[in-house]
Amino acid sequence: MSPLVFALAQIDTCVGDLAGNAGKVMEYAARAARHGARVVVFPEMTLTGYPIEDLALRATFRKAAWSQANDLAEQLDKAGLGPLYVIVGTVGTDHDGDRPRNRMVVLHRGVVWAGYDKHFLPNYGVFDEYRIFTSGQRTVILDIDGHRVGLAICEDIWQEGGPVQEMAEQGIDLLLTINGSPYEEGKGHVRMDLAARRARQVGAPVMYVNQVGGQDDLVFDGGSFVISPSGDLLERSPQFIEHLGYWTLPAAGDEAGCQVGPHAVMAADLAGDEEVYRACVLGLKDYMAKNHFTGVCLGLSGGIDSALVAAMAADACGGGNIWGISMPSRYSSLGSKDDAADLASRLGARYEIQPIATEFEAFQQMLHLEGVAEENIQARIRGVIVMAYSNSHGLLALATGNKSELACGYSTIYGDAVGGYAPIKDLLKTRVWDLARWRNERARQEGKTEPIPENSIVKPPSAELREGQKDSDSLPDYRLLDQVLSAYIEKAHGRADLLADGFDGDTVDTVMRLVDRAEWKRRQYPLGPKVTGLAFGRDRRLPVTNAFRE
Amino acid sequence: MSPLVFALAQIDTCVGDLAGNAGKVMEYAARAARHGARVVVFPEMTLTGYPIEDLALRATFRKAAWSQANDLAEQLDKAGLGPLYVIVGTVGTDHDGDRPRNRMVVLHRGVVWAGYDKHFLPNYGVFDEYRIFTSGQRTVILDIDGHRVGLAICEDIWQEGGPVQEMAEQGIDLLLTINGSPYEEGKGHVRMDLAARRARQVGAPVMYVNQVGGQDDLVFDGGSFVISPSGDLLERSPQFIEHLGYWTLPAAGDEAGCQVGPHAVMAADLAGDEEVYRACVLGLKDYMAKNHFTGVCLGLSGGIDSALVAAMAADACGGGNIWGISMPSRYSSLGSKDDAADLASRLGARYEIQPIATEFEAFQQMLHLEGVAEENIQARIRGVIVMAYSNSHGLLALATGNKSELACGYSTIYGDAVGGYAPIKDLLKTRVWDLARWRNERARQEGKTEPIPENSIVKPPSAELREGQKDSDSLPDYRLLDQVLSAYIEKAHGRADLLADGFDGDTVDTVMRLVDRAEWKRRQYPLGPKVTGLAFGRDRRLPVTNAFRE
Repeated sequence: MSPLVFALAQIDTCVGDLAGNAGKVMEYAARAARHGARVVVFPEMTLTGYPIEDLALRATFRKAAWSQANDLAEQLDKAGLGPLYVIVGTVGTDHDGDRPRNRMVVLHRGVVWAGYDKHFLPNYGVFDEYRIFTSGQRTVILDIDGHRVGLAICEDIWQEGGPVQEMAEQGIDLLLTINGSPYEEGKGHVRMDLAARRARQVGAPVMYVNQVGGQDDLVFDGGSFVISPSGDLLERSPQFIEHLGYWTLPAAGDEAGCQVGPHAVMAADLAGDEEVYRACVLGLKDYMAKNHFTGVCLGLSGGIDSALVAAMAADACGGGNIWGISMPSRYSSLGSKDDAADLASRLGARYEIQPIATEFEAFQQMLHLEGVAEENIQARIRGVIVMAYSNSHGLLALATGNKSELACGYSTIYGDAVGGYAPIKDLLKTRVWDLARWRNERARQEGKTEPIPENSIVKPPSAELREGQKDSDSLPDYRLLDQVLSAYIEKAHGRADLLADGFDGDTVDTVMRLVDRAEWKRRQYPLGPKVTGLAFGRDRRLPVTNAFRE
Repeated sequence: MSPLVFALAQIDTCVGDLAGNAGKVMEYAARAARHGARVVVFPEMTLTGYPIEDLALRATFRKAAWSQANDLAEQLDKAGLGPLYVIVGTVGTDHDGDRPRNRMVVLHRGVVWAGYDKHFLPNYGVFDEYRIFTSGQRTVILDIDGHRVGLAICEDIWQEGGPVQEMAEQGIDLLLTINGSPYEEGKGHVRMDLAARRARQVGAPVMYVNQVGGQDDLVFDGGSFVISPSGDLLERSPQFIEHLGYWTLPAAGDEAGCQVGPHAVMAADLAGDEEVYRACVLGLKDYMAKNHFTGVCLGLSGGIDSALVAAMAADACGGGNIWGISMPSRYSSLGSKDDAADLASRLGARYEIQPIATEFEAFQQMLHLEGVAEENIQARIRGVIVMAYSNSHGLLALATGNKSELACGYSTIYGDAVGGYAPIKDLLKTRVWDLARWRNERARQEGKTEPIPENSIVKPPSAELREGQKDSDSLPDYRLLDQVLSAYIEKAHGRADLLADGFDGDTVDTVMRLVDRAEWKRRQYPLGPKVTGLAFGRDRRLPVTNAFRE
């Protein structure tokens, strides 16, 4: 028995793009073969993309996916890649009319060979798999050149029982799992700890291949790896980029691993701020690419939120593809306009100034608004202008709201909330500042221009919708607010827990009331990347009509 | 053994309003007792409201619900209602840290007595119960005065096995099921057919108590009933209103049923148009009541969509609480303005005219828009005005889009799509016309003014955003379009199916492309009542980023 060379193909698929995804498998399989791989492993639901949601329920889609798998097996064979074991994920059914399954297949010598169906179907958080799939019941252990390779799909290794336990009892040489594991901060270490436990349980290394890329409100960070039963990392692919890694399963009795095939890489650990920043950029970049946008437009207020979003956009699509629009009103300070212009110049973005006084007066002659209504109309005039740029130039409009605002409803629906994508919607305000500082620091380290004007970082936040307005007029100080929000939303602490956390009763009541009342606005907010353990959206499904108040 | 008098308490609960829901139970229990009932039965999850979604995951909520059940049992007892068996639904856990259960409890003589946990957890369509609950495992048969009453909750009777089969084997005198079964057209008959099958299976009548009322995008139509094993309706409560019905389970050997307690009612079957119309009105009415709105505002274009929505609003909250805003542009025909004024006058609505020329010119001086961007800006100016009314007067803004428009993306996001609620979003355009005609016909029958101007019904539909524009310039004829949409969306037919249905290839391709590309707009669309077998929203969860094209 000879050592077995694996390639870990950490690719970025697109939901529904069967031909495109298959093309990418061809390309990576060819590269892997050239480098001497015997087995190349792709992420969960490679051919269909992931997650496919209710597309799984469409018979024509399942049929097309199945044809694609067969075509791909033939094409691989014709291209001389028949001897390679190509492991991909797709949607499957055993018989017409069956409920679909989340399936792994092996393409080998021109045919679709073997099949393993995901056993544990996650249906919590952002996942809806029990809704669309039925569970597999069989444990599958492949024999490849005498090596026993046990198969699992994502959630299967998060549970102690089921297939993993059966494989532990039957004995395997490698536990191979393909994944579509969405990013959240710190999850990489959770995955590795878990995989190490499973490796101990089965007494063999675990190979964890994850997809990379953005899909609507999810970002997949890649970070594929191989880990030994003693918890040693044997390979680690980088995060947030496509990557073809290699690792060799030694022959029996050759535990040290003779050097066959390419070296395994060992990507560095990213610091928290960088990881989160890159997740947001990738989410935006892939939303643009997969929905055929090449440029973005957004309002530049001179504040930190729009500055950070613009910096991310510059990293996603290049500063020259950004249309930054300054839309000053009578309440906009000179400093704000300067900061917006400074930002655009630093990024190399297009910059246009569209003062809103004329429109504001036109509406006010008719409507004579006061108070919040008068504030909102300014934000909505800006929303109209941003969408006009989007419509006229085919640009993706970006909403610049952060998670603290979204939580408290501190934004104007159809105003600053307009857009097709909202890159920082899962970042609390204090994190927005952190990432802005990190991004500037990174630029300094690289000897480049800091993208974000210092003034946008240090000045007190204001919506500038009335004279002398500051966010702190309406909201608790952001340091405090974000702590309460984190406890209330991400940790789901109730009122008593929050008091026990040490927050004062007035603050707790104010924040809980604001959050609970803003659900209707959040429902109409654009998609944006989940980067925390609990994001707004399908991760947290609360009724709009909800009288519960603690 | 004496006959057992049941009261069917078909009430309208509010999600999260534990005290309010308990108060309603007290009130109905007292009425039931006064009329000689021994058992009073409330709908699924009475105390918490239904569906509670991720509120189920909040420990403080579950604790509060449990306290409420205990308090209520005590209060009933103190009010002299202790001897009554009060059957309510709530959320339950057996131990701290357990996953929650969808639970039925019996309140009797001051204590929370017996408990049955829902066995089958629906997780398809609009349902997410597997996400939030864990299944009950025990079958429960109550002994009430010697009668064997088997318990089930909603989905439990939609499955042949499980508790129903066990009860069939053990023998019962009545199968009692409490429900939160959302309305869709024609579902009443489906429920009765199903219940009749179950009654045959268990060899005893089935009592089906359903909730009534609107909750976000769902409407519960009530229509509670009792059906015999031979399929005879023994009681039938009306749809769309709260109701306390009665039915007596005869003593053994007295199958004919001696007359004890009040007579059972037998509500009439509603015709399809009336049923759907009333569902939309109840959805709107309850959204308003439960979110504390007393009035609405909407743009009145003179077209059929805004006319029907206004008529529904008048039925939901009274014409005097409607603010109708006519916002003519240079492209608005005189007829449109007249029709809008006529509508407002028929409904007794407030009516204000806000021409948009000044705002349009103000934007155009700055932006010089053409084509679709120029069309959109008119719709968005109107959106700003509608929201200004909403903000200034505390009104619920209504979006007037229909399902055909929503399907094809034939609306302006942040324009005519603004609002907190969208009463006709699940009605295809042809159904909008049908319901308008039905509503006028009903008015004629009652000798009242027809609410909807005939001209709004008969004229060719137009968005009036450019000279001489007609919907038919951009879309297939609505009769044809709606057939294709119905097949593609509600029946999930693929391209080949649609061709086999007899539609021509160009139409099919046009419609599929329009529907698939509009997903991002639908995500940001307001909530509105589901009335068909498949509504947009959580009923049909498709990715925005989705390259699949047949």
